[in-house]
Amino acid sequence: MLKALITATLMLSSAISQAGGEFRHVVMFKFKDTATPAQVAAVEKAFGELPSKIDTVVAYEWGTSESVEGMNDGLTHCFFVTFKDKAGLETYIPHPAHAAFKEILIPILDKALVFDYTAKD
Amino acid sequence: MLKALITATLMLSSAISQAGGEFRHVVMFKFKDTATPAQVAAVEKAFGELPSKIDTVVAYEWGTSESVEGMNDGLTHCFFVTFKDKAGLETYIPHPAHAAFKEILIPILDKALVFDYTAKD
Repeated sequence: MLKALITATLMLSSAISQAGGEFRHVVMFKFKDTATPAQVAAVEKAFGELPSKIDTVVAYEWGTSESVEGMNDGLTHCFFVTFKDKAGLETYIPHPAHAAFKEILIPILDKALVFDYTAKD
Repeated sequence: MLKALITATLMLSSAISQAGGEFRHVVMFKFKDTATPAQVAAVEKAFGELPSKIDTVVAYEWGTSESVEGMNDGLTHCFFVTFKDKAGLETYIPHPAHAAFKEILIPILDKALVFDYTAKD
């Protein structure tokens, strides 16, 4: 019990301390006015499947705009993808699963913004 | 010792499980070409002091653009601020410390993009 707790504590501490230095890939989309809800849902689903298909992804989350200040420039979706380092993203970009995702995305995409950074405190 | 470890484990588990559902405030800036490095550094420092001044901020990180695909639209800085919920951001926006920060920011700001979302898996 004691040993298990020590192990669990160390593992959890490690998970938290990794927050600094991770490589973040922030992706935002605005879809075409002609995009149907089913097409948008297909993009959301397909993006969410990439972390299980590309093993350099270490964390993933997403959400839709709940703007308070109205400064989101029409962008409605944000996908926040984390890699251990920049090399992880460089593996992800040309990956066949990412290319297949773009086939679903591009027909309904109005504009995209992508910001990559190394997380600092 | 055992009690302390159990407490630490529960606290850390709690910290991790909060990842879903947290409210994210993603702020990106492009500074004017006339902004000096000292002015930019002052904005970076002032933004980083907001979490200690506004207690609804539960997590904070930032970084500068390391674009892989060149889709960052000229934006050079990203600040990623987390609140427990949207009400936390609504407290933050009109807070005097935030207003004082904007006094430093606005003179050198070319453009800003802000995206707010509730984190989902």
